[in-house]
Amino acid sequence: MISAREKAIFEAGIKLGALYHQWVGSPVSPQTAATLERAIEASVSLQPFVERVTVHLDRSLMAPNTFGYSELSGLMFDVEIVTRVDGVACRAKLRRNGTYPLMEIVE
Amino acid sequence: MISAREKAIFEAGIKLGALYHQWVGSPVSPQTAATLERAIEASVSLQPFVERVTVHLDRSLMAPNTFGYSELSGLMFDVEIVTRVDGVACRAKLRRNGTYPLMEIVE
Amino acid sequence: MISAREKAIFEAGIKLGALYHQWVGSPVSPQTAATLERAIEASVSLQPFVERVTVHLDRSLMAPNTFGYSELSGLMFDVEIVTRVDGVACRAKLRRNGTYPLMEIVE
Amino acid sequence: MISAREKAIFEAGIKLGALYHQWVGSPVSPQTAATLERAIEASVSLQPFVERVTVHLDRSLMAPNTFGYSELSGLMFDVEIVTRVDGVACRAKLRRNGTYPLMEIVE
Repeated sequence: MISAREKAIFEAGIKLGALYHQWVGSPVSPQTAATLERAIEASVSLQPFVERVTVHLDRSLMAPNTFGYSELSGLMFDVEIVTRVDGVACRAKLRRNGTYPLMEIVE
Repeated sequence: MISAREKAIFEAGIKLGALYHQWVGSPVSPQTAATLERAIEASVSLQPFVERVTVHLDRSLMAPNTFGYSELSGLMFDVEIVTRVDGVACRAKLRRNGTYPLMEIVE
Repeated sequence: MISAREKAIFEAGIKLGALYHQWVGSPVSPQTAATLERAIEASVSLQPFVERVTVHLDRSLMAPNTFGYSELSGLMFDVEIVTRVDGVACRAKLRRNGTYPLMEIVE
Repeated sequence: MISAREKAIFEAGIKLGALYHQWVGSPVSPQTAATLERAIEASVSLQPFVERVTVHLDRSLMAPNTFGYSELSGLMFDVEIVTRVDGVACRAKLRRNGTYPLMEIVE
């Protein structure tokens, strides 16, 4: 038997894994970061069991290449997501932990 | 020798191929399509030699799945891009041609 | 407090969400499907807490387009993954459920 | 009027842009790099107007993260592609140029 709490945890994992690999590699700069944040939030919010998602991209890591932009990397993500299954919520995060983009359950 | 015209054509191809494979698979609905269009335009505009890009996503193809959303597919794209190299421009399109998402040089 | 079982569930969700959005959109045909299956398995196996992963792509859904190939879609996936955290395993699946690519915990 | 030569150049650009954004972000290590190279080649070869494609991934850039793997980045690519339209071929490359993954027409 899988509890509602476990299902909410599973769904949070799915959403974090999905958004990471969907969006990594997109050209981005400090000027376009806000537009990209809103698009990621709108996109993730469509998926089942998502109650809330906030996406912040770390501008300080957007070092311009030869052509003045950078690519979205995993380390730029600071994401908090709340999933809910049968009334039970899971809050999880994706954020930089040293040099690794860590996904973890918060509660 | 590669002419400026040929370089502009090459760059237009790169940008269309890139945006297609970067964004296909994103969750999308008629309600979030405009946000996604603006994010794609902002992202592509950062890349070198891009003078202008307009992205329209065909809402009529966004048939909701069990959970009420759909995924961005190649057939939904209607994109026009203008690249410019050494003063010479190339205008190219990505748009549905029957059941195939066709990329073609317009001029 | 998060249990090992819950962490294993979270990790299984991450991996399924990630592989889905990383690989959807790749050109594929019945002739290249086996190569792609092995590459996805090798790639996912590198990630932390993955004990085993098997990927099967449904050739019957690979209807050739005008140019004789198709694109990897979510409905083609039949994936089973086992994650393990502190000795506790989670087995999960991604497979077609009618017209939706369903991810679910098996045990 | 667009010449066969120009069409071959356009197609080469499309393929390089597409493969870059399709595959960037995949987990990879020196041990799995060959499998990934073959999968990318098989996938790209399915696309129209592709005569030949060779993919080499730079193992020396695959510095292991905390968990012992890395992610495919644009700088790891060394790709040569030949497209052909109406008997006219274009050879193009994607390879590292300092800190930028450069795409260029070779002939």
